[in-house]
Amino acid sequence: MFITFEGVEGSGKSTQIALAKDWIETQGREALATRQPGGCALGLELRRILLDARNTHLDPTAELFMYLADRAQHVAQVVRPALEAGKAVLCDRFHDSTVAYQGFGRGLDVESLLGLGRLAAAGLAPDLTVLLDLDPEQGLSRARGRNHAAGASQSEGRFEALDLPFHQRVRQGFLELARREPARFAVVDASGDPVAVFARVRQALAALPWA
Amino acid sequence: MFITFEGVEGSGKSTQIALAKDWIETQGREALATRQPGGCALGLELRRILLDARNTHLDPTAELFMYLADRAQHVAQVVRPALEAGKAVLCDRFHDSTVAYQGFGRGLDVESLLGLGRLAAAGLAPDLTVLLDLDPEQGLSRARGRNHAAGASQSEGRFEALDLPFHQRVRQGFLELARREPARFAVVDASGDPVAVFARVRQALAALPWA
Repeated sequence: MFITFEGVEGSGKSTQIALAKDWIETQGREALATRQPGGCALGLELRRILLDARNTHLDPTAELFMYLADRAQHVAQVVRPALEAGKAVLCDRFHDSTVAYQGFGRGLDVESLLGLGRLAAAGLAPDLTVLLDLDPEQGLSRARGRNHAAGASQSEGRFEALDLPFHQRVRQGFLELARREPARFAVVDASGDPVAVFARVRQALAALPWA
Repeated sequence: MFITFEGVEGSGKSTQIALAKDWIETQGREALATRQPGGCALGLELRRILLDARNTHLDPTAELFMYLADRAQHVAQVVRPALEAGKAVLCDRFHDSTVAYQGFGRGLDVESLLGLGRLAAAGLAPDLTVLLDLDPEQGLSRARGRNHAAGASQSEGRFEALDLPFHQRVRQGFLELARREPARFAVVDASGDPVAVFARVRQALAALPWA
Protein backbone atom coordinates (compact mmCIF):
# COMPACT_ATOMS: atom_id res chain seq x y z
CA MET A 1 0.00 0.00 0.00
CA PHE A 2 1.67 3.21 -1.21
CA ILE A 3 0.22 6.38 0.36
CA THR A 4 1.46 9.89 -0.41
CA PHE A 5 0.78 13.10 1.50
CA GLU A 6 0.68 16.37 -0.42
CA GLY A 7 -0.03 19.99 0.39
CA VAL A 8 1.39 23.48 0.58
CA GLU A 9 4.12 24.48 3.05
CA GLY A 10 2.88 24.22 6.63
CA SER A 11 -0.15 22.04 5.82
CA GLY A 12 0.82 19.56 8.53
CA LYS A 13 2.09 16.64 6.43
CA SER A 14 4.73 15.48 8.95
CA THR A 15 2.26 15.41 11.83
CA GLN A 16 -0.39 13.58 9.83
CA ILE A 17 2.16 11.04 8.55
CA ALA A 18 3.29 10.32 12.13
CA LEU A 19 -0.34 9.82 13.20
CA ALA A 20 -1.06 7.66 10.13
CA LYS A 21 1.99 5.48 10.77
CA ASP A 22 0.84 4.94 14.37
CA TRP A 23 -2.67 4.06 13.22
CA ILE A 24 -1.43 1.56 10.63
CA GLU A 25 0.88 -0.07 13.18
CA THR A 26 -1.91 -0.39 15.74
CA GLN A 27 -3.76 -2.33 13.02
CA GLY A 28 -0.84 -4.81 13.18
CA ARG A 29 0.77 -3.77 9.90
CA GLU A 30 4.29 -2.57 9.20
CA ALA A 31 4.69 0.98 7.90
CA LEU A 32 7.61 3.01 6.60
CA ALA A 33 7.51 6.83 6.65
CA THR A 34 9.76 8.54 4.13
CA ARG A 35 9.94 11.79 2.21
CA GLN A 36 11.00 13.55 -0.96
CA PRO A 37 13.38 15.07 -1.40
CA GLY A 38 15.60 13.44 1.20
CA GLY A 39 14.41 9.85 1.55
CA CYS A 40 17.72 8.29 0.42
CA ALA A 41 21.41 9.24 0.58
CA LEU A 42 21.33 10.82 -2.89
CA GLY A 43 18.09 12.57 -1.96
CA LEU A 44 19.68 14.09 1.14
CA GLU A 45 22.44 15.62 -0.96
CA LEU A 46 19.95 16.89 -3.54
CA ARG A 47 17.59 18.14 -0.80
CA ARG A 48 20.37 20.23 0.66
CA ILE A 49 21.00 21.85 -2.75
CA LEU A 50 17.32 22.22 -3.65
CA LEU A 51 16.08 23.73 -0.41
CA ASP A 52 19.06 25.99 0.23
CA ALA A 53 17.74 29.55 0.16
CA ARG A 54 21.10 30.69 -1.25
CA ASN A 55 20.51 28.74 -4.50
CA THR A 56 18.21 31.39 -5.87
CA HIS A 57 19.63 31.17 -9.37
CA LEU A 58 18.63 27.58 -9.94
CA ASP A 59 17.23 27.21 -13.47
CA PRO A 60 13.61 25.89 -13.28
CA THR A 61 14.38 23.01 -15.64
CA ALA A 62 17.50 22.08 -13.64
CA GLU A 63 15.41 22.14 -10.48
CA LEU A 64 12.83 19.87 -12.13
CA PHE A 65 15.45 17.31 -13.17
CA MET A 66 16.93 17.23 -9.67
CA TYR A 67 13.53 16.41 -8.17
CA LEU A 68 13.13 13.69 -10.81
CA ALA A 69 16.59 12.26 -10.04
CA ASP A 70 15.68 12.07 -6.38
CA ARG A 71 12.33 10.44 -7.23
CA ALA A 72 13.94 7.75 -9.42
CA GLN A 73 16.54 6.88 -6.79
CA HIS A 74 14.06 6.97 -3.92
CA VAL A 75 11.58 4.68 -5.71
CA ALA A 76 14.30 2.19 -6.70
CA GLN A 77 16.16 2.18 -3.40
CA VAL A 78 13.49 2.78 -0.73
CA VAL A 79 9.85 2.68 -1.82
CA ARG A 80 9.75 -0.39 -4.07
CA PRO A 81 11.81 -2.65 -1.75
CA ALA A 82 9.58 -1.67 1.21
CA LEU A 83 6.39 -2.37 -0.77
CA GLU A 84 7.81 -5.69 -1.92
CA ALA A 85 8.53 -6.53 1.72
CA GLY A 86 4.82 -6.03 2.43
CA LYS A 87 5.10 -2.69 4.24
CA ALA A 88 2.77 0.26 3.85
CA VAL A 89 4.83 3.21 2.61
CA LEU A 90 3.86 6.74 3.68
CA CYS A 91 5.64 9.36 1.60
CA ASP A 92 5.88 13.08 2.39
CA ARG A 93 5.49 14.53 -1.15
CA PHE A 94 5.70 12.64 -4.45
CA HIS A 95 5.16 13.53 -8.10
CA ASP A 96 2.00 15.60 -7.47
CA SER A 97 4.28 18.12 -5.70
CA THR A 98 6.50 18.30 -8.78
CA VAL A 99 3.49 19.01 -10.99
CA ALA A 100 2.01 21.51 -8.52
CA TYR A 101 5.25 23.43 -7.78
CA GLN A 102 7.18 23.21 -11.06
CA GLY A 103 4.13 23.08 -13.32
CA PHE A 104 1.33 25.15 -11.80
CA GLY A 105 3.73 27.23 -9.63
CA ARG A 106 6.70 27.88 -11.91
CA GLY A 107 4.88 27.53 -15.22
CA LEU A 108 6.57 24.46 -16.77
CA ASP A 109 4.32 22.42 -19.08
CA VAL A 110 1.98 20.30 -16.91
CA GLU A 111 1.38 17.53 -19.48
CA SER A 112 5.15 17.03 -20.04
CA LEU A 113 5.61 16.85 -16.28
CA LEU A 114 3.02 14.09 -15.98
CA GLY A 115 4.98 12.02 -18.55
CA LEU A 116 8.33 12.67 -16.84
CA GLY A 117 6.83 11.58 -13.53
CA ARG A 118 5.90 8.19 -14.96
CA LEU A 119 9.48 7.82 -16.26
CA ALA A 120 11.03 8.80 -12.91
CA ALA A 121 8.77 6.51 -10.85
CA ALA A 122 9.13 3.67 -13.39
CA GLY A 123 5.34 3.40 -13.48
CA LEU A 124 4.77 3.29 -9.70
CA ALA A 125 1.67 5.30 -8.68
CA PRO A 126 0.20 5.87 -5.19
CA ASP A 127 -2.80 3.82 -4.06
CA LEU A 128 -3.97 6.84 -2.07
CA THR A 129 -2.89 10.49 -2.07
CA VAL A 130 -3.98 12.53 0.94
CA LEU A 131 -4.13 16.19 -0.07
CA LEU A 132 -3.96 18.35 3.06
CA ASP A 133 -5.71 21.40 1.68
CA LEU A 134 -4.95 24.70 3.41
CA ASP A 135 -4.97 28.40 2.65
CA PRO A 136 -1.28 29.07 1.82
CA GLU A 137 -1.29 32.25 3.92
CA GLN A 138 -2.08 30.16 7.00
CA GLY A 139 0.40 27.42 5.96
CA LEU A 140 3.28 29.82 5.32
CA SER A 141 2.83 31.48 8.66
CA ARG A 142 3.07 28.02 10.33
CA ALA A 143 6.09 27.01 8.19
CA ARG A 144 7.96 30.25 8.83
CA GLY A 145 7.42 29.96 12.56
CA ARG A 146 8.74 26.40 12.48
CA ASN A 147 11.80 27.24 10.35
CA HIS A 148 12.58 30.27 12.46
CA ALA A 149 12.36 28.19 15.64
CA ALA A 150 14.65 25.55 14.09
CA GLY A 151 17.15 28.17 12.93
CA ALA A 152 16.57 26.83 9.41
CA SER A 153 15.62 30.05 7.65
CA GLN A 154 18.85 30.03 5.62
CA SER A 155 18.97 26.39 4.69
CA GLU A 156 15.41 25.25 4.09
CA GLY A 157 13.60 28.45 3.31
CA ARG A 158 13.84 28.63 -0.48
CA PHE A 159 10.20 27.79 -1.18
CA GLU A 160 8.83 29.62 1.85
CA ALA A 161 10.59 32.74 0.51
CA LEU A 162 8.48 32.75 -2.66
CA ASP A 163 5.51 35.10 -2.81
CA LEU A 164 1.95 34.25 -1.85
CA PRO A 165 0.58 34.13 -5.44
CA PHE A 166 3.11 31.34 -6.19
CA HIS A 167 1.77 29.29 -3.27
CA GLN A 168 -1.82 30.03 -4.29
CA ARG A 169 -1.07 28.62 -7.77
CA VAL A 170 0.45 25.55 -6.09
CA ARG A 171 -2.68 25.03 -3.97
CA GLN A 172 -4.94 25.38 -7.01
CA GLY A 173 -2.66 22.97 -8.89
CA PHE A 174 -3.05 20.32 -6.20
CA LEU A 175 -6.84 20.77 -6.28
CA GLU A 176 -6.85 20.48 -10.09
CA LEU A 177 -4.84 17.21 -9.89
CA ALA A 178 -7.34 15.91 -7.32
CA ARG A 179 -10.24 16.77 -9.66
CA ARG A 180 -8.53 14.81 -12.46
CA GLU A 181 -8.05 11.67 -10.32
CA PRO A 182 -10.83 11.60 -7.72
CA ALA A 183 -10.39 7.84 -7.09
CA ARG A 184 -6.76 8.31 -5.98
CA PHE A 185 -7.11 11.54 -4.01
CA ALA A 186 -8.63 12.22 -0.62
CA VAL A 187 -8.88 16.00 -0.20
CA VAL A 188 -8.82 16.82 3.52
CA ASP A 189 -9.40 20.22 5.12
CA ALA A 190 -6.10 20.76 6.97
CA SER A 191 -7.09 23.79 9.02
CA GLY A 192 -7.65 23.47 12.75
CA ASP A 193 -6.59 20.93 15.32
CA PRO A 194 -4.26 18.13 14.06
CA VAL A 195 -6.30 15.45 15.84
CA ALA A 196 -9.50 16.64 14.16
CA VAL A 197 -7.67 16.69 10.80
CA PHE A 198 -6.45 13.15 11.43
CA ALA A 199 -10.01 11.92 12.02
CA ARG A 200 -10.63 12.85 8.37
CA VAL A 201 -7.31 11.29 7.20
CA ARG A 202 -8.14 8.07 9.09
CA GLN A 203 -11.41 7.74 7.20
CA ALA A 204 -9.47 7.74 3.92
CA LEU A 205 -6.95 5.21 5.27
CA ALA A 206 -9.67 2.91 6.58
CA ALA A 207 -11.38 2.94 3.18
CA LEU A 208 -8.31 1.38 1.49
CA PRO A 209 -8.62 -2.28 0.45
CA TRP A 210 -6.12 -3.59 3.05
CA ALA A 211 -5.38 -7.22 2.33
CA MET B 1 29.83 29.50 -32.16
CA PHE B 2 29.07 26.53 -29.88
CA ILE B 3 31.53 23.64 -30.26
CA THR B 4 31.33 20.40 -28.27
CA PHE B 5 33.99 17.70 -27.86
CA GLU B 6 32.89 14.11 -27.35
CA GLY B 7 34.58 10.75 -27.02
CA VAL B 8 35.27 7.83 -24.71
CA GLU B 9 37.35 8.11 -21.53
CA GLY B 10 40.95 9.03 -22.34
CA SER B 11 40.25 10.19 -25.90
CA GLY B 12 42.13 13.45 -25.28
CA LYS B 13 39.26 15.92 -25.06
CA SER B 14 40.91 18.24 -22.52
CA THR B 15 44.13 18.51 -24.54
CA GLN B 16 42.29 19.14 -27.81
CA ILE B 17 40.05 21.75 -26.18
CA ALA B 18 43.11 23.60 -24.83
CA LEU B 19 44.70 23.56 -28.31
CA ALA B 20 41.42 24.64 -29.94
CA LYS B 21 41.00 27.52 -27.48
CA ASP B 22 44.54 28.73 -28.28
CA TRP B 23 43.89 28.48 -32.01
CA ILE B 24 40.60 30.43 -31.78
CA GLU B 25 42.27 33.14 -29.66
CA THR B 26 45.18 33.49 -32.10
CA GLN B 27 42.48 34.23 -34.71
CA GLY B 28 41.58 37.23 -32.53
CA ARG B 29 38.36 35.76 -31.13
CA GLU B 30 37.31 35.21 -27.53
CA ALA B 31 36.75 31.63 -26.41
CA LEU B 32 35.42 30.01 -23.26
CA ALA B 33 36.34 26.42 -22.37
CA THR B 34 33.86 24.64 -20.09
CA ARG B 35 32.71 21.13 -19.33
CA GLN B 36 29.87 18.88 -18.24
CA PRO B 37 29.35 17.87 -15.62
CA GLY B 38 31.05 20.55 -13.58
CA GLY B 39 30.82 23.77 -15.61
CA CYS B 40 28.79 25.67 -12.98
CA ALA B 41 28.45 25.64 -9.18
CA LEU B 42 25.52 23.24 -9.28
CA GLY B 43 27.38 21.11 -11.81
CA LEU B 44 30.38 20.82 -9.50
CA GLU B 45 28.20 19.45 -6.73
CA LEU B 46 26.47 17.03 -9.12
CA ARG B 47 29.79 16.05 -10.71
CA ARG B 48 31.13 15.07 -7.30
CA ILE B 49 28.12 12.79 -6.74
CA LEU B 50 28.02 11.42 -10.30
CA LEU B 51 31.68 10.56 -10.68
CA ASP B 52 32.23 9.24 -7.19
CA ALA B 53 33.20 5.58 -7.55
CA ARG B 54 31.48 4.87 -4.22
CA ASN B 55 28.05 5.74 -5.67
CA THR B 56 27.72 2.38 -7.39
CA HIS B 57 24.05 2.03 -6.48
CA LEU B 58 22.91 5.04 -8.44
CA ASP B 59 19.70 4.17 -10.32
CA PRO B 60 20.26 4.67 -14.11
CA THR B 61 17.22 6.96 -14.42
CA ALA B 62 18.37 9.00 -11.41
CA GLU B 63 21.80 9.33 -13.01
CA LEU B 64 20.19 10.48 -16.25
CA PHE B 65 18.15 13.18 -14.53
CA MET B 66 21.22 14.50 -12.70
CA TYR B 67 23.09 14.91 -15.97
CA LEU B 68 20.05 16.68 -17.39
CA ALA B 69 19.85 18.97 -14.34
CA ASP B 70 23.48 19.90 -14.81
CA ARG B 71 22.91 20.50 -18.53
CA ALA B 72 19.94 22.80 -17.96
CA GLN B 73 21.80 24.87 -15.36
CA HIS B 74 25.03 24.99 -17.36
CA VAL B 75 23.27 26.13 -20.55
CA ALA B 76 21.27 28.81 -18.70
CA GLN B 77 24.10 30.09 -16.52
CA VAL B 78 27.28 29.62 -18.59
CA VAL B 79 26.87 28.64 -22.24
CA ARG B 80 24.06 30.92 -23.40
CA PRO B 81 25.42 34.10 -21.72
CA ALA B 82 28.88 33.47 -23.25
CA LEU B 83 27.41 32.91 -26.72
CA GLU B 84 25.32 36.06 -26.34
CA ALA B 85 28.51 37.95 -25.42
CA GLY B 86 29.94 36.85 -28.76
CA LYS B 87 32.37 34.23 -27.43
CA ALA B 88 33.08 30.85 -28.95
CA VAL B 89 32.15 28.20 -26.37
CA LEU B 90 34.13 24.92 -26.26
CA CYS B 91 32.38 22.32 -24.14
CA ASP B 92 33.91 19.07 -22.86
CA ARG B 93 30.89 16.70 -23.29
CA PHE B 94 27.29 17.69 -24.00
CA HIS B 95 24.09 15.82 -24.75
CA ASP B 96 25.71 13.32 -27.15
CA SER B 97 27.54 11.91 -24.11
CA THR B 98 24.22 11.42 -22.32
CA VAL B 99 22.82 9.54 -25.31
CA ALA B 100 26.01 7.49 -25.77
CA TYR B 101 26.53 6.59 -22.08
CA GLN B 102 22.98 6.38 -20.70
CA GLY B 103 21.34 5.25 -23.95
CA PHE B 104 23.78 3.08 -25.89
CA GLY B 105 25.87 2.22 -22.79
CA ARG B 106 23.26 1.66 -20.06
CA GLY B 107 20.35 0.74 -22.31
CA LEU B 108 17.89 3.60 -21.68
CA ASP B 109 15.65 4.44 -24.65
CA VAL B 110 17.69 6.49 -27.16
CA GLU B 111 14.74 8.32 -28.77
CA SER B 112 13.41 9.44 -25.35
CA LEU B 113 16.88 10.69 -24.47
CA LEU B 114 17.05 12.80 -27.62
CA GLY B 115 13.77 14.50 -26.61
CA LEU B 116 14.93 15.06 -23.02
CA GLY B 117 18.15 16.61 -24.33
CA ARG B 118 16.21 19.24 -26.23
CA LEU B 119 14.22 20.03 -23.08
CA ALA B 120 17.37 20.29 -20.92
CA ALA B 121 19.25 22.48 -23.40
CA ALA B 122 16.14 24.59 -24.12
CA GLY B 123 16.69 23.98 -27.83
CA LEU B 124 20.39 24.93 -27.93
CA ALA B 125 22.37 22.63 -30.27
CA PRO B 126 26.11 22.66 -31.10
CA ASP B 127 27.29 24.24 -34.35
CA LEU B 128 30.08 21.66 -34.45
CA THR B 129 30.69 18.46 -32.50
CA VAL B 130 34.22 17.07 -32.63
CA LEU B 131 34.06 13.33 -31.97
CA LEU B 132 37.51 12.14 -30.87
CA ASP B 133 37.18 8.53 -31.94
CA LEU B 134 39.40 6.03 -30.14
CA ASP B 135 39.49 2.33 -29.29
CA PRO B 136 38.16 2.30 -25.68
CA GLU B 137 40.87 -0.14 -24.61
CA GLN B 138 43.51 2.44 -25.52
CA GLY B 139 41.46 5.29 -23.98
CA LEU B 140 40.85 3.50 -20.69
CA SER B 141 44.50 2.73 -20.26
CA ARG B 142 45.28 6.44 -20.71
CA ALA B 143 42.46 7.50 -18.35
CA ARG B 144 43.46 5.02 -15.65
CA GLY B 145 47.06 6.15 -15.78
CA ARG B 146 45.93 9.76 -15.43
CA ASN B 147 43.51 9.09 -12.55
CA HIS B 148 46.05 6.99 -10.76
CA ALA B 149 48.67 9.72 -11.11
CA ALA B 150 46.19 12.29 -9.79
CA GLY B 151 45.18 10.06 -6.86
CA ALA B 152 41.61 10.28 -8.19
CA SER B 153 40.83 6.60 -8.51
CA GLN B 154 38.25 6.74 -5.70
CA SER B 155 36.54 9.99 -6.60
CA GLU B 156 36.40 10.17 -10.40
CA GLY B 157 36.69 6.58 -11.43
CA ARG B 158 33.05 5.48 -11.59
CA PHE B 159 32.88 5.28 -15.39
CA GLU B 160 36.44 4.05 -15.84
CA ALA B 161 35.51 1.16 -13.53
CA LEU B 162 32.88 -0.15 -15.95
CA ASP B 163 33.79 -3.04 -18.19
CA LEU B 164 35.18 -2.80 -21.70
CA PRO B 165 31.96 -3.93 -23.50
CA PHE B 166 30.17 -0.94 -21.90
CA HIS B 167 32.77 1.45 -23.34
CA GLN B 168 32.60 -0.29 -26.71
CA ARG B 169 28.82 0.31 -26.80
CA VAL B 170 29.49 3.97 -25.92
CA ARG B 171 31.99 4.32 -28.78
CA GLN B 172 29.57 2.72 -31.26
CA GLY B 173 26.82 4.99 -29.91
CA PHE B 174 28.90 8.10 -30.64
CA LEU B 175 29.61 6.83 -34.17
CA GLU B 176 25.88 6.13 -34.73
CA LEU B 177 25.01 9.70 -33.61
CA ALA B 178 27.65 11.03 -36.02
CA ARG B 179 26.11 8.99 -38.87
CA ARG B 180 22.69 10.48 -38.08
CA GLU B 181 23.95 14.09 -38.16
CA PRO B 182 26.95 14.24 -40.51
CA ALA B 183 26.66 18.02 -40.97
CA ARG B 184 27.14 18.68 -37.25
CA PHE B 185 29.80 16.04 -36.50
CA ALA B 186 33.50 15.94 -37.38
CA VAL B 187 34.78 12.44 -36.58
CA VAL B 188 38.50 12.64 -35.85
CA ASP B 189 40.89 9.72 -35.34
CA ALA B 190 42.18 10.41 -31.80
CA SER B 191 44.98 7.86 -31.73
CA GLY B 192 48.58 9.00 -31.89
CA ASP B 193 50.31 12.28 -31.19
CA PRO B 194 48.04 15.11 -29.83
CA VAL B 195 49.55 17.65 -32.25
CA ALA B 196 48.78 15.39 -35.21
CA VAL B 197 45.25 14.88 -33.88
CA PHE B 198 44.87 18.65 -33.54
CA ALA B 199 45.80 19.17 -37.18
CA ARG B 200 42.61 17.23 -37.99
CA VAL B 201 40.54 19.12 -35.38
CA ARG B 202 41.80 22.46 -36.74
CA GLN B 203 40.51 21.58 -40.20
CA ALA B 204 37.02 21.15 -38.75
CA LEU B 205 37.30 24.42 -36.80
CA ALA B 206 38.54 26.33 -39.84
CA ALA B 207 35.61 25.06 -41.89
CA LEU B 208 33.08 26.76 -39.56
CA PRO B 209 31.35 29.88 -40.94
CA TRP B 210 33.11 32.31 -38.54
CA ALA B 211 31.50 35.74 -38.87
